[in-house]
Amino acid sequence: MKTIKAAIAGATGYTGGELIRVLLNHPYVEIGALLTSSRCGQAVSAVHKDLYGDCDLHFTDAPGEPDVLFLCLAHGASREFLRTHSLPAHCKIIDLGNDFRVDNTFGDKTFVYGIPEWFREDIRHAGHVANPGCFATAIILALAPLAATRLLTSDVHIHAVTGATGAGKQPGETTHFSYRASNLSIYKPFTHQHLAEINHTLAALAGGVIPPINMIPVRGDFTRGIFASVLTRLPENVAAEQVQEYYRNYYAPSPFVHLAAGTISLKEVVNTNKALLQLHFHNGYVHITSAIDNLLKGASGQAVQNMNLLFGFPEDCGLRLKNIGF
Amino acid sequence: MKTIKAAIAGATGYTGGELIRVLLNHPYVEIGALLTSSRCGQAVSAVHKDLYGDCDLHFTDAPGEPDVLFLCLAHGASREFLRTHSLPAHCKIIDLGNDFRVDNTFGDKTFVYGIPEWFREDIRHAGHVANPGCFATAIILALAPLAATRLLTSDVHIHAVTGATGAGKQPGETTHFSYRASNLSIYKPFTHQHLAEINHTLAALAGGVIPPINMIPVRGDFTRGIFASVLTRLPENVAAEQVQEYYRNYYAPSPFVHLAAGTISLKEVVNTNKALLQLHFHNGYVHITSAIDNLLKGASGQAVQNMNLLFGFPEDCGLRLKNIGF
Amino acid sequence: MKTIKAAIAGATGYTGGELIRVLLNHPYVEIGALLTSSRCGQAVSAVHKDLYGDCDLHFTDAPGEPDVLFLCLAHGASREFLRTHSLPAHCKIIDLGNDFRVDNTFGDKTFVYGIPEWFREDIRHAGHVANPGCFATAIILALAPLAATRLLTSDVHIHAVTGATGAGKQPGETTHFSYRASNLSIYKPFTHQHLAEINHTLAALAGGVIPPINMIPVRGDFTRGIFASVLTRLPENVAAEQVQEYYRNYYAPSPFVHLAAGTISLKEVVNTNKALLQLHFHNGYVHITSAIDNLLKGASGQAVQNMNLLFGFPEDCGLRLKNIGF
Amino acid sequence: MKTIKAAIAGATGYTGGELIRVLLNHPYVEIGALLTSSRCGQAVSAVHKDLYGDCDLHFTDAPGEPDVLFLCLAHGASREFLRTHSLPAHCKIIDLGNDFRVDNTFGDKTFVYGIPEWFREDIRHAGHVANPGCFATAIILALAPLAATRLLTSDVHIHAVTGATGAGKQPGETTHFSYRASNLSIYKPFTHQHLAEINHTLAALAGGVIPPINMIPVRGDFTRGIFASVLTRLPENVAAEQVQEYYRNYYAPSPFVHLAAGTISLKEVVNTNKALLQLHFHNGYVHITSAIDNLLKGASGQAVQNMNLLFGFPEDCGLRLKNIGF
Repeated sequence: MKTIKAAIAGATGYTGGELIRVLLNHPYVEIGALLTSSRCGQAVSAVHKDLYGDCDLHFTDAPGEPDVLFLCLAHGASREFLRTHSLPAHCKIIDLGNDFRVDNTFGDKTFVYGIPEWFREDIRHAGHVANPGCFATAIILALAPLAATRLLTSDVHIHAVTGATGAGKQPGETTHFSYRASNLSIYKPFTHQHLAEINHTLAALAGGVIPPINMIPVRGDFTRGIFASVLTRLPENVAAEQVQEYYRNYYAPSPFVHLAAGTISLKEVVNTNKALLQLHFHNGYVHITSAIDNLLKGASGQAVQNMNLLFGFPEDCGLRLKNIGF
Repeated sequence: MKTIKAAIAGATGYTGGELIRVLLNHPYVEIGALLTSSRCGQAVSAVHKDLYGDCDLHFTDAPGEPDVLFLCLAHGASREFLRTHSLPAHCKIIDLGNDFRVDNTFGDKTFVYGIPEWFREDIRHAGHVANPGCFATAIILALAPLAATRLLTSDVHIHAVTGATGAGKQPGETTHFSYRASNLSIYKPFTHQHLAEINHTLAALAGGVIPPINMIPVRGDFTRGIFASVLTRLPENVAAEQVQEYYRNYYAPSPFVHLAAGTISLKEVVNTNKALLQLHFHNGYVHITSAIDNLLKGASGQAVQNMNLLFGFPEDCGLRLKNIGF
Repeated sequence: MKTIKAAIAGATGYTGGELIRVLLNHPYVEIGALLTSSRCGQAVSAVHKDLYGDCDLHFTDAPGEPDVLFLCLAHGASREFLRTHSLPAHCKIIDLGNDFRVDNTFGDKTFVYGIPEWFREDIRHAGHVANPGCFATAIILALAPLAATRLLTSDVHIHAVTGATGAGKQPGETTHFSYRASNLSIYKPFTHQHLAEINHTLAALAGGVIPPINMIPVRGDFTRGIFASVLTRLPENVAAEQVQEYYRNYYAPSPFVHLAAGTISLKEVVNTNKALLQLHFHNGYVHITSAIDNLLKGASGQAVQNMNLLFGFPEDCGLRLKNIGF
Repeated sequence: MKTIKAAIAGATGYTGGELIRVLLNHPYVEIGALLTSSRCGQAVSAVHKDLYGDCDLHFTDAPGEPDVLFLCLAHGASREFLRTHSLPAHCKIIDLGNDFRVDNTFGDKTFVYGIPEWFREDIRHAGHVANPGCFATAIILALAPLAATRLLTSDVHIHAVTGATGAGKQPGETTHFSYRASNLSIYKPFTHQHLAEINHTLAALAGGVIPPINMIPVRGDFTRGIFASVLTRLPENVAAEQVQEYYRNYYAPSPFVHLAAGTISLKEVVNTNKALLQLHFHNGYVHITSAIDNLLKGASGQAVQNMNLLFGFPEDCGLRLKNIGF
């Protein structure tokens, strides 16, 4: 298959680094410009030190002529980047920020929301992709089968724990090791910014209104992962077996989303592009546990999955990563 | 004040060890028999190694003549212990197991449920105390003001994360460091054994039936603490300020339970007997965050608090512990 | 006993916070001015959030009339503070910075190096104390018996791991949770700034020159503690039993330093003012494991121990802290 | 290239699981029999739960006709296994236990010590490989260039910290999360069983005797990794630059061993087959920091590297793993 050239804007951050780690082993991608505003000319391994010995790449400030551009910028900075940089006409854009997830147009460009499990065909024919947020990915995968089958009718209660990498590279009080180790704390209760894209996407899948979603985000004591606990009441007379089957069928064509039979734990998805779902039923409620790696299925892994679809590569190409295991 | 003599059955376990740590600094308690079936004659510091240099106590198998006996046995073993050991008639019993929390009688003995913040006067005049479970403590403290004011009328959704010490000293698959580090997993969804005492106690406080409680327990990646996220819908036209005031008033006389104004985090209670509560209101819902140290307010600290009430000591005597901070 | 009034400069930092936590329970101390340049007027619990419910203190910028002043400032800032603030003539100063550890005079003030186990009588009669560094405390306690008995004659090799609180409150790259979790890294090999006070103190105890000390500091994956591994060759024909006895005898009068018979682990000292030492002998070498809590015996706990000596309180007054255990 | 069939004895343990994770993505290997004495017939994902959705393999007790057999058994059990199982004559054996590392013969079979960086040609022509221990790998890679250049002449002092997976899957006191979290402890000081293969191998490289090696193993507070701190005095008049160059040259042909210019940290090698070395020089001493992933370069990754050499595959085939990063 033909090789494409990839550029990354914001290549010094966490999601930029993960993209490099993944793309280094992708058989059809050549890593081109690794753009940064601050470390131009430096070796990639001076910033992403674990890549020492793995590559001889350097940061630059010239995008060159990429076939695909990943935007790994602060939320809100993607539009500014596109305004101030010129790209080849054929260049496809995958934005890992939240600039195009709800308001999905920019000039003549349209961004498809990049959850391949639900918008696979749209993405295959798209020019550009708005890569979903990490919480949004975990939660949409958990609820989309209910929305699509019109079973999402009661208030939803979500408690979702995120790893410290979700807060980005800039150090601060709540990412200080002394604070975060052996600790838990909630933040932005009911008001997390991912609720917009979650509501938007589920409403589209449900073909109408969806019930209120109560989301309590929690800062967890680990580096990687989202562990979401999602609870809602089912409409009356809906059998658990039926719901299980909906989930299984919807995700059967998907290489990365699995409905687990047994008990799942967060670490089973760490360093992979997988999402694991588990259902429990009790007194009319369904509880969905949803686990992803926030930097992979929740960011850079899903971005590569979207890239694979955009360019006609196998969906899992370069994404069969060795699980961390422990 | 007169000194009392305390004995501990099951003194080699986690809660037994915490009792020793706390009682060593209690001004009115002399530690008597530290009972064990397996390490009889050994130094306490051979098992609780951190006590090396702090005491010269040894384990024994003879209860002696204690004024108070703490039972720190496996759940279900307290009744058997009482059947097979004779105690002085005046000896007060504090059971940290779950034997007497719901069915609270044993022969002519009656056990009062030991949440001092709600049953303080009962405990003061009681002979024996059934010390609550760790999850139960965190959740009852969170919901009791709603129950007592008849505001607990809608289904309750709880997501509660526990530290590894909650699983006891016996090593196993889910307490193996390699499994537990950087991991989260749910267990016993909707069916945790503490639900019985939670329902029983809240119903008593509400003076009638209470709504269903959905509880999702989660194994956390830390050693000490319970971090409970509790959500329910308030009856219509109940003002947030009113609810805040109920909580503040109910807990005003309590030295260890605080309604925090700002954001709380789990570590703020670790190594203390405190419970911290925080309320958020949103679209008719109230969300209560409740944090305790599972081994102290959730077990041995609360047991000493109950002992203080039983014997007329100041409620916080010996329990002003230095917070771990970090 | 008479109560004294204590002020703390730099009360918003880690060591300042630990001092407050300890002094709150000290029977002979009233906490006076808690000085800060940045949070003046705010509640202490707004910064040290775990103290919510434990005290109603506020930060100030006026030292008042303290009997003892603890300086918890950045290294080098203590001299500047003393130049710019006037203190009561009788006020004793305990500096937790490194300003007076080697060059121990300031105007007419002399600072005694505050390792009570070796300079107890000097401290009792001192006006002011230079509180040792955390690494220095762990290492001096490990080597001082050899120095004092003239057995410290061969090169010393030290590998010492420190918790993240040792790096202070200011967040940075190497205290970011995402970096530090599950990680180890060395820093300042052979050149750590505590070597000056270590060399200075051991030379004084040895009454002459001491051998070179090779020290490799390591950033550890925990919040609290110093775990030092110290190796040196003994002079010929020195029996292990003899060395063990020297250690036991030297530390017999000390309430906080213990020569352990069995295996020690770091957590046995966390949240205490204890130091645990363990000796192994092999082929002419002695290996000393030394463990302390860097914020207590390595900083604020030792400062209170020194305060107790300065004011004639029992040495362990207010310092019988409940060990964290787990 | 032709595909080979691999069998694994002891496939339910940590190193067996890692082998499966690596071999699943190896282009020239078909995973054959996954042998176990206890879980025969069960799905691999029932034991290695993170492999759910990644493979449909099951455990068995029949070795079949493998081209290569990995032995992942308890130390000492490999000889017993070979005595009681018959294998095809052409089957090559890679033993991850310590049965053949020093005494390297079994009947007519000879096992080559499998550090590819030093015995690459021997391995290429070998029938069987004794895969080194994890500590041994980290330490031999650190010291071998000195041994080979006859610069290893002074006593060596090693402080090496290991992750909890190094202790194996069976839970116990020192792998209990409550014990291990935020803790450090030494074990087997001076007497670790890997010293035999370390001494044996370095003596072979040095062509004679080597100085005593003092090794202090430490239990670390993380799951994966070995972080070794190695110190020795250089012979007089040996320039640092010369030593640096020896290291660089020796490891230049090796795809996985790198002499880092800057500061290294443990996590840079986690989930990779890399070893990172860093040198510091001070007053005649050289200090070598050596970091590997104990389950990969220290076990299963190196086993696959050896397999690649045995079968003429590229040395790094299947071993370009995505680093965990965080």
